[in-house]
Amino acid sequence: VTVLRVAIAQLPNVVGDIHGNAERISETMDWAEDERADVLVLPELVLTGYPLSDLALHQEFVADAGDVLLQLAERAGDTVTVLSTVDRVPPRQTWDSRPRDVTIAAALLSGGEVRGMYHKVLLPTHGGYDEGRVFAAGREPDAIWRLGDVIAGVSICEDLWTSDGPPEAQSVAGARVILAPNASPWWRGKAGSRARNLAQLARRNGVPIVYANLVGGQDELVFDGGSLIADRHGELVYRAPDFTTHRAVVDLELPPPRPLRRDAKTVHTRPVQREEVERTAAVAEPSDEIASVWQALVMGTRDFATRNGYNEAIIALSGGIDAVVTAAVAAEALGAENVLGIAMPGAETPHEELGDAEQVASNLGITFAAMDVTDVVETLTRTVDGRSGVTPTGDARVALEARGRSAVLLTIADEEERLALATGNKTELSVGSGTLHGDIVGGFAPLRDCPKTLLYELARYRNRQGQVIPDHIFDKPTTAQQLGDGWPPPYEVLDRIVERYVEHGAGLEDLIADGFEPNLALEVVRRIDDAELLRRLVPPGVKVTARAFTHDRRLPISNAWRPHRHPDAVPSPEGPRPWEEVEVPG
Amino acid sequence: VTVLRVAIAQLPNVVGDIHGNAERISETMDWAEDERADVLVLPELVLTGYPLSDLALHQEFVADAGDVLLQLAERAGDTVTVLSTVDRVPPRQTWDSRPRDVTIAAALLSGGEVRGMYHKVLLPTHGGYDEGRVFAAGREPDAIWRLGDVIAGVSICEDLWTSDGPPEAQSVAGARVILAPNASPWWRGKAGSRARNLAQLARRNGVPIVYANLVGGQDELVFDGGSLIADRHGELVYRAPDFTTHRAVVDLELPPPRPLRRDAKTVHTRPVQREEVERTAAVAEPSDEIASVWQALVMGTRDFATRNGYNEAIIALSGGIDAVVTAAVAAEALGAENVLGIAMPGAETPHEELGDAEQVASNLGITFAAMDVTDVVETLTRTVDGRSGVTPTGDARVALEARGRSAVLLTIADEEERLALATGNKTELSVGSGTLHGDIVGGFAPLRDCPKTLLYELARYRNRQGQVIPDHIFDKPTTAQQLGDGWPPPYEVLDRIVERYVEHGAGLEDLIADGFEPNLALEVVRRIDDAELLRRLVPPGVKVTARAFTHDRRLPISNAWRPHRHPDAVPSPEGPRPWEEVEVPG
Repeated sequence: VTVLRVAIAQLPNVVGDIHGNAERISETMDWAEDERADVLVLPELVLTGYPLSDLALHQEFVADAGDVLLQLAERAGDTVTVLSTVDRVPPRQTWDSRPRDVTIAAALLSGGEVRGMYHKVLLPTHGGYDEGRVFAAGREPDAIWRLGDVIAGVSICEDLWTSDGPPEAQSVAGARVILAPNASPWWRGKAGSRARNLAQLARRNGVPIVYANLVGGQDELVFDGGSLIADRHGELVYRAPDFTTHRAVVDLELPPPRPLRRDAKTVHTRPVQREEVERTAAVAEPSDEIASVWQALVMGTRDFATRNGYNEAIIALSGGIDAVVTAAVAAEALGAENVLGIAMPGAETPHEELGDAEQVASNLGITFAAMDVTDVVETLTRTVDGRSGVTPTGDARVALEARGRSAVLLTIADEEERLALATGNKTELSVGSGTLHGDIVGGFAPLRDCPKTLLYELARYRNRQGQVIPDHIFDKPTTAQQLGDGWPPPYEVLDRIVERYVEHGAGLEDLIADGFEPNLALEVVRRIDDAELLRRLVPPGVKVTARAFTHDRRLPISNAWRPHRHPDAVPSPEGPRPWEEVEVPG
Repeated sequence: VTVLRVAIAQLPNVVGDIHGNAERISETMDWAEDERADVLVLPELVLTGYPLSDLALHQEFVADAGDVLLQLAERAGDTVTVLSTVDRVPPRQTWDSRPRDVTIAAALLSGGEVRGMYHKVLLPTHGGYDEGRVFAAGREPDAIWRLGDVIAGVSICEDLWTSDGPPEAQSVAGARVILAPNASPWWRGKAGSRARNLAQLARRNGVPIVYANLVGGQDELVFDGGSLIADRHGELVYRAPDFTTHRAVVDLELPPPRPLRRDAKTVHTRPVQREEVERTAAVAEPSDEIASVWQALVMGTRDFATRNGYNEAIIALSGGIDAVVTAAVAAEALGAENVLGIAMPGAETPHEELGDAEQVASNLGITFAAMDVTDVVETLTRTVDGRSGVTPTGDARVALEARGRSAVLLTIADEEERLALATGNKTELSVGSGTLHGDIVGGFAPLRDCPKTLLYELARYRNRQGQVIPDHIFDKPTTAQQLGDGWPPPYEVLDRIVERYVEHGAGLEDLIADGFEPNLALEVVRRIDDAELLRRLVPPGVKVTARAFTHDRRLPISNAWRPHRHPDAVPSPEGPRPWEEVEVPG
């Protein structure tokens, strides 16, 4: 049998940091060479970072990446390094009238040279993926490469996610192994489907697959690593731990040679000598689901802050669950000593709220300050009254207070060069209960894709690592609940409707068929549809669900479509109904 | 000769308003029938509105459009109506792993039925266009249709913008005329390239082309109409006026029959009887460039407001050029009586500023109110001082004042249900001189894609219709200029660098080769690269240039790429240089 020694490394994803990335790559190449690996597989766009969006249209950027690739190639020895970067090609016109001339590529480096270049064929252009906007597609899905007597295929990320894509073409053409650079962002439930897909792919084609993934937070996305190697029977022989850099050496038994159905491009002609498996690596258990969410929030927040030049953060620290979870995430992401929580009580803030905020700050070890905003709110009110003669009440009053607080928060953030973290959650954004430019303000909103019910789970998870959030905070009514006008319904119900409508694309009919109370379903769907403008003006945050607002789910702001007709759903003329009795169906 | 009687109508673009759009279409179909037109050509996605983004993924929406199409078909008589809408197809996998099952289509209605369905082949997925994200591509670029003895091709928008696309395939297959529904958004200079492209297309293929365009504002986009008919020699025989609905009947002489190179699909078999041109229409002059910009701003602002439920607007009315141009646009868009300008002088605001604001409000006929924010700013300062012990100065002071003002503005907007219009411009957004959540706040920012120098041109244009902006406002130093720290350079220079870097994709090398002072070019480019987060949090506004921030130009926020190395560009250690002497090259 032929045994291929594979080195695999999941490295950080730092968009634009070509030279920093190159240093990490260079050090990894030396390591693989020392380990006498036959191949080294690195993640997708490891040299440039991912995703690039229009940075890939910047000619100087692409030229810079090209120069650095040549420098890295000079360091390549016997180990074949599969190094993904951008690569310029002659202009190609495909699905529209615009020619494109930059591809997502994997260079094969060996003996001081670039010996091969694979171009990614399938370019994800759905949900939050925009690759088709800027990149040219590869045209050789069945390209195969000669590494001595081993024929290998190279497929990149999306190339793997269909049952008749490049890995199939390469296997049929003669490949005995698929080397796969990836930039596969994390979201809840993704790790499982990734492993299943890979196992099926290996089994279906009878070839082992080496799957290297990026790690790190990049704007809305977190890359969780969790790199995988499946043998030709689809059994996992390696899984990297998630949410951390990692590398390993694995000796991989290859299937017997296959007839070549097309010419293989020669990377080198030295035969692979190894016939026995000497090196194996651990199959790490993936983190459980809530732990994954937590780590993603921490990594996403840390990387956003540091990559935008912030070492310190500031949070409006009420004693509510959203604020305390945000503070706990920030403390872990940036170090408690770098986080400032400010409580901003007003005239009507209960004394206990301030106490809760101070307690949580103390438990977390973050800096705490209380700044009374009574005067700010009062002066704002007085100034506004000068026009209308009417003192704002209800929602308008809540909005006014939120704006006064945000002015204080952002001013301190400016003065102390802190990243202001907004505390809004997905439930709030869904039904538009936030104030425009009011309470979801700042540079980053870590929890913006976390439904309210998930926040409680996260809080309990955090307390299991050491109690920091007092029990009674879990039972506090939220600001919306305090207003007591029959809204919101229980969060278990609300979040389930939001999930069905936003993530699963269910319609009103579907929701009613699910068993949700028709008028409630109508009301929730209406509110979701009406809040698009608000959602556009909220800071970015970590993608946690399969369909994050704005990032993955893009709707017109001006959108007259509000059919929401159903014989059972007749909005009551008296306004919202008491939803307290409503239960989650089945 | 054969003469085809063509009815063409540019109709409003109301996204999601299937039933309202259907009423307009139905009335237009009756008109075309009365005019004894052989065909009626309507714009792209006239039934659903454009662009749809993820609304096209909503199954209930697509089903609704399908139902309404059948109702409209029932009304179709002898006139063949080319009606563009979405159409479901069996799932197709193309450029990524995701099957898509909705197309952009043009239905051919006649005799009470849908007699044909063309599917758009080229799906623009570049800049601000996202069609490839959601739509399946048509696979029959050479489809041709029998309208009695006339063979016609149908091509949709992007299909027309390449020299070997569907119109070419259809002409070769035997088409004697191309019927073309379009949703072609306006930007500066677009109308000219559109007419040139169409003329070339007609001449190259020897067929007349009937080009119907949408009209109206949809979020960032304005559709200007300006529908066109070119004869087979490429001569324009009709141009609709721009920025207004319009319809016309034109008798169009067709080229002689061509050999059929594929089967034509039969829409009907009644021969076209007409042999002489009886009806012609005017070739309207397109608006000049500044008038176009003005009309686009007015239309974009009006449609955004009304389609989001606002009849009234509010503007922070300083006496500066940005605010007065915004107010003038709003007054024309919504009616002067529906616009409220509030001046918010602080302790240091010169008395003349207030006078200028009041004067402009009076000239425009809008409502005016002055609300002193001295107390608000003072209380905010005092509250913040409580933490730092340091009173904010310079930029921090400007930011604090901006936040106090925005809190007042937005609270009044809430109370009076007015759309808050932000006054920021493209130059400011480019170099990040705005305050985050501070001075570019609201629901819509009409001027966000207008460079500062363009604002002065717009102000002069407005004054030519009747002087509303006093002359001395043109000469006032801007807030940034008042700070007097050597920044900004003259706006003529700054805007030219921004244009080259942002719109033309020039690099630092290119700018220096253009003749810009190297350190200045470096400084401007640095500021542009550093302001991505700010730009993400600014309200939408009208796209005016070829490359509007965020809408067309999408960059990572976290982006370490700052090469900006050039031997001649060495930032001076003493900070910004005095740019006052710098001139615009050549």
